[in-house]
Amino acid sequence: MTCTKQKIIEAAICLFNTKGYHGTSVRDIASEAGVNVANISYYFSGKKGLLEHLVTGFLEGYISTMAEAFEMRHVLSPKEVVFLIVRDILHYQSSHRSLTRFVYRELSLDSILIREIMTTYLQREKYYLKHIIETGREQGVFIRTPFAVFMSQLKGMLSAPYLYPQYISEVLYERPSDEYFTKMYGKEVEKWLSMMMEGNPSPVTQVLHL
Amino acid sequence: MTCTKQKIIEAAICLFNTKGYHGTSVRDIASEAGVNVANISYYFSGKKGLLEHLVTGFLEGYISTMAEAFEMRHVLSPKEVVFLIVRDILHYQSSHRSLTRFVYRELSLDSILIREIMTTYLQREKYYLKHIIETGREQGVFIRTPFAVFMSQLKGMLSAPYLYPQYISEVLYERPSDEYFTKMYGKEVEKWLSMMMEGNPSPVTQVLHL
Repeated sequence: MTCTKQKIIEAAICLFNTKGYHGTSVRDIASEAGVNVANISYYFSGKKGLLEHLVTGFLEGYISTMAEAFEMRHVLSPKEVVFLIVRDILHYQSSHRSLTRFVYRELSLDSILIREIMTTYLQREKYYLKHIIETGREQGVFIRTPFAVFMSQLKGMLSAPYLYPQYISEVLYERPSDEYFTKMYGKEVEKWLSMMMEGNPSPVTQVLHL
Repeated sequence: MTCTKQKIIEAAICLFNTKGYHGTSVRDIASEAGVNVANISYYFSGKKGLLEHLVTGFLEGYISTMAEAFEMRHVLSPKEVVFLIVRDILHYQSSHRSLTRFVYRELSLDSILIREIMTTYLQREKYYLKHIIETGREQGVFIRTPFAVFMSQLKGMLSAPYLYPQYISEVLYERPSDEYFTKMYGKEVEKWLSMMMEGNPSPVTQVLHL
């Protein structure tokens, strides 16, 4: 990737996280990146192209991270695969912190672009997790919650530290981008997963049957 | 509240969730609400005033919901108070679904307005929860995770179904605004809280000491 292209991407992500996507003009991005505004048309055919590039780029990486972990199902137990997916996704997101924040925010919008992107990528995510959980069930490991609730909670767990870094630093006084916090957070998400998947299903608890 | 003011608020929230705050003009809002554009200046002194009105209005209600549950600490156990807070907040958010979505999205931005609002409201939230957890600790009920991680996870749990309704409906095929889904989700968050607060602290688990 050229330096110019990279500079545009970094400037755009930074501005989108401060003033929002719509609050940022192509001119703002060019000026922040220190490049001529024509470069944005040249590399991304404008701001919307840049948005698509960022969101699909992030989700491509997200899904291929997940796909790689999913391949490990031939050598690991279903539970281990879920753990691996979560660990690798958190690691991926930590390597693209600002982009992650931007994409999760965009995913919360009711737009046609987001709808199209979602059906492409997040249906794959759903497929992977459903497949592993089903395999787990066959082997006697149950997820003690309905699938849609589990997925929603997982989305919350995976997105919160990236969506609200300002809250974490200015209200909770922790540094969300510190290795320390990231590791601690990951460990706690694993603990949650453990609790979700441990043991035999109890008759009073609602159990997922796919 | 006048009908005009209410119509402006509803049109604004709807448009902000579709095109984003910055992607929506005062003219769009007036036209969607079917009112004269001058009314927006009159009632809110413009779009920024409307944003402030929405965000602080939501957080006022959020914090007073929490404050009311917090008052119950004189008659309920710390664990019961945490449960009550979570139940009441989910209920509050479900009664203001679109506004909740908008506010959580705005909270993810690095802006001065958000920073100021956060220190006012979310420091109070932190105070309430810290107080209850500390009281719990004195009575032998431990939260098995560092406070900042617990709060981040809680934010994720409480925000996910409101931030990603499109994901829930179009990928998971559930209706996030259905009474059924809301109840089921609430029950599962309570289960998570139960797991977090149950039992005596184990020496190998990291335990919160405030």
